[in-house]
Amino acid sequence: MLPAPLNPPIRTLLGPGPSDVHPRVLAALAKNTVGHLDPYYLEMMNDLQQMLRDLFRTKNEMTMAISGTGSAGMEATVVNLIEPGDAMVVGVNGVFGARMADVAERTGATVTRLERSWGEVFTPEEIAATVERVKPKVVGIVMAETSTGAYQPIEPISRVVHDGGALLLVDAVTSLGGVPVEVDQWQIDAIYSGSQKCLSCPPGLAPVSFSAKAMEAIKSRKTKVQSWYLDVTMLANYWGQNRVYHHTAPINMSYGLYEAVRIIHEEGLDACFARHQLQHRALKAGLAAIGITYAAAEGYQLPMLNAVHVPPGIDDTAVRAGLLNRFGIEIGAGLGAFKGKVWRIGLMGYGSRVANVMLLLGALEQLLAEQGHKFTPGSTLAAANAIYAGK
Amino acid sequence: MLPAPLNPPIRTLLGPGPSDVHPRVLAALAKNTVGHLDPYYLEMMNDLQQMLRDLFRTKNEMTMAISGTGSAGMEATVVNLIEPGDAMVVGVNGVFGARMADVAERTGATVTRLERSWGEVFTPEEIAATVERVKPKVVGIVMAETSTGAYQPIEPISRVVHDGGALLLVDAVTSLGGVPVEVDQWQIDAIYSGSQKCLSCPPGLAPVSFSAKAMEAIKSRKTKVQSWYLDVTMLANYWGQNRVYHHTAPINMSYGLYEAVRIIHEEGLDACFARHQLQHRALKAGLAAIGITYAAAEGYQLPMLNAVHVPPGIDDTAVRAGLLNRFGIEIGAGLGAFKGKVWRIGLMGYGSRVANVMLLLGALEQLLAEQGHKFTPGSTLAAANAIYAGK
Repeated sequence: MLPAPLNPPIRTLLGPGPSDVHPRVLAALAKNTVGHLDPYYLEMMNDLQQMLRDLFRTKNEMTMAISGTGSAGMEATVVNLIEPGDAMVVGVNGVFGARMADVAERTGATVTRLERSWGEVFTPEEIAATVERVKPKVVGIVMAETSTGAYQPIEPISRVVHDGGALLLVDAVTSLGGVPVEVDQWQIDAIYSGSQKCLSCPPGLAPVSFSAKAMEAIKSRKTKVQSWYLDVTMLANYWGQNRVYHHTAPINMSYGLYEAVRIIHEEGLDACFARHQLQHRALKAGLAAIGITYAAAEGYQLPMLNAVHVPPGIDDTAVRAGLLNRFGIEIGAGLGAFKGKVWRIGLMGYGSRVANVMLLLGALEQLLAEQGHKFTPGSTLAAANAIYAGK
Repeated sequence: MLPAPLNPPIRTLLGPGPSDVHPRVLAALAKNTVGHLDPYYLEMMNDLQQMLRDLFRTKNEMTMAISGTGSAGMEATVVNLIEPGDAMVVGVNGVFGARMADVAERTGATVTRLERSWGEVFTPEEIAATVERVKPKVVGIVMAETSTGAYQPIEPISRVVHDGGALLLVDAVTSLGGVPVEVDQWQIDAIYSGSQKCLSCPPGLAPVSFSAKAMEAIKSRKTKVQSWYLDVTMLANYWGQNRVYHHTAPINMSYGLYEAVRIIHEEGLDACFARHQLQHRALKAGLAAIGITYAAAEGYQLPMLNAVHVPPGIDDTAVRAGLLNRFGIEIGAGLGAFKGKVWRIGLMGYGSRVANVMLLLGALEQLLAEQGHKFTPGSTLAAANAIYAGK
C-alpha cells in the first residue's frame, strides 16, 4: 500500500523558521536540473557567491553555501577553525550558543562556555575578561539567538576579541537578511547562516564566509579537518577557480538560494532591513495593546524573531493549536528554559509584511478572548495600524 | 548590477549523476513549505521512512534521509560506527572507496586500505584474509563504483565479514533503485545512498539505514560521535517517536525524495530493475556495434553506470563538448586513473529509457564519424533496437 500523494496543507509560517518561502523561490526549485560541472552551473555559482558577498557585506573570496542546513554551517565553521589542543570560548545564552559549544567540544579542543541567563546578551567587558584569562584561538557568539529573540551587538565584541588575538566566529542564522550584518566592517573572521530564515528559501543550505585570516589559520592546522564533507580547503577547490569535484552540489536548492538572494538585492538591503523594523514595530505595538511583552530587554529585541511572554493564565498549547488548526498559522513554542512560557513569532524575509501582522493579531485576539483574556476588541489592529500610519 | 535571472539550459543528464529529475519530482519540490514539526510533515516523514525501508528491503527502524548529499551519508555512517582506537577495513578500487578511507582516517581510527586496480572487484577470499589479519570493527565496501562502473557482489562478502565478527558498511549511492539492494537478506549493518542517481531526485539528501546491531555498536561508543550534525543517536530522536528538534529538516527536498521514491514503488522494484537491465543491454549492444567496450569485466558491469573506453584516436574532450553543446547531452568524464580514457554514461532512474539510449547513440555516431572513426552508419541504433525487439 502506497502512502498518500504529497499534498501539504497551506500554512502561514510565522515561527522561528522555516519561514514562508517566496513564490519565485518555489518556482526556482522546480527548474530543470543541470550537472554540477555544467558551464551554466559554474557561472551561476560565481554569481551566487558574489550575491552572498554583497549580502554579508564582505570581499572574502571564501564565501559560499554549505550543502546542509544552518547547523551544518555552524559545524563547518567550527571544525575548520579548531583542532585538538586549541582553546575556544563560546557565549551561551540560549539553545544555539549551547549547540555551538557541543559542536566545538566534539573536536577535542578545550571549550570554555561563557554563560548568561536566557534572553540576556554579553557585554564586551565580560568577553574581554574571558579572552584575557583563556587566551582562545576562537571566540564564538550568536548574533540573533533564535531561542530567546535577543540581539547581540557584534562590533564592540569584535574589538575585544581581536585585541586578545583571537578569531571571531558569528552565528548569523536568523540575522542575515533581516538586520545589518557587516562582515568586513566588523572584522568577523567566520560566519554562517541558513537559507530558511530571512532569506525565505526552504531549509537545506548554509551560506558561510571566511576571512583571509581565518583561511590562514585553517592552512596552518596540524591535523586534517575532522569532517571530510565540510573541509573548507577541499570546498575551496570546487567553489574556486579550479572547480575540482568534491561532492555533488545540491543543484536545485542552489537555484532556490540564488533566486532568494537576488530578490533581497532587488529590494535593496536598506529597504529590506527597514521593512523588517516596521513590521516588528507594528507587531510589537499590537501585542502591547493586549499586554503581551518581550522576553529580551528593550533595545536588544530582534525584529525578525519576536519572543514574547505567554500571558498569565493563558494555555500555551491551546493557543498554538488554535492558530494552526483554525487559522493555518504556525508560531514557535518556547525551547528549553522558555518551554511553555514564551511564544516565538517570526516575521522573516518575505513573511515580514503587513498581511501577516494583521492576520496574526486578529487570530490572537480571537483565541485570547475565548480564554478570558481581558482587552478592548480591535485594539491590536488599531495599534499596529497607527505604526503603519507613521504615528 | 544584479546577475542574470535564473535560466538553466535544458540538458539530458546521462552522466554519473545528477541524473534527469522526473517532472513529478520537480513539481513536488515547488510545493508550499510547512514547518519541520508540522503534524503533516511528521506524518509525511513516517511514510517516507517506510517507503525507504521498502526500497532498502529492510525492517530497520533507523532508516531515514540525512540532510546532505551522498557524501554526507558516507560520513554519517562512518563516523557513527567508528571512533579513535577502532580498526576499519575499506575496499579501495576507485574514487569512492578512497573517499571512504579518507573519511574514516579523520576519525582517529586505524584504517586498512585493501586495494584493487580500478575496474576490478573484491573476492570474498581476500576480504576474509584481511578481516582475519586486522580484526576490524567495520568493513566498508562500495557496491557500485561510480568511477569505474564495477558491480561488487555484496552477499558473499557479507558472510566473511560477519564470520570475522565485523560490521558491514555498504556504499549504495549509485546502486539503490537500479539493481536489487537487499539490506536484511544480505545482513548489511549500515548503508547509504544519494537522491541524485537512480532515484531521479536532485542532489541534497542521503537515504541511510542502520541495523539493530549497528545501533547497539553506536550506543556502546566510548566517545561522542565527532559530528553533531550527523550524530545518529540525536537524529533518531527526531525521526523516531519523540520528535525532538535536532536541526531543521530540509522540507522541500524531502518532498522531492518522497515523490521520487513513491514513483519507484508505483512501478514496482522488479519492473524498475528489469528496465535498467534492458536499457543497459540496448546501450551496450549499440556501443559494441561501433567497437566501444566496457571498463569493468563481463558479469560485473553496472546497468546504470556504463563506464566505457574512449576509442583509440578519438578526442575525449571534443566528443563530450560536442555532446553537450550540439545535442544538450551530459555524459561523465573519467576520474583519476581513468581520466581521458573512459566515458561514464548514466542510465539512471527516470533517465533509463529508450529515448535517451537512441538519442545518445545517434549523437555519438555523428561525432565519431566526424573524427574519422570507422563503422557502418546506423549500426548502433539497429543493434539497440534488436535488443528491444527481444532478439
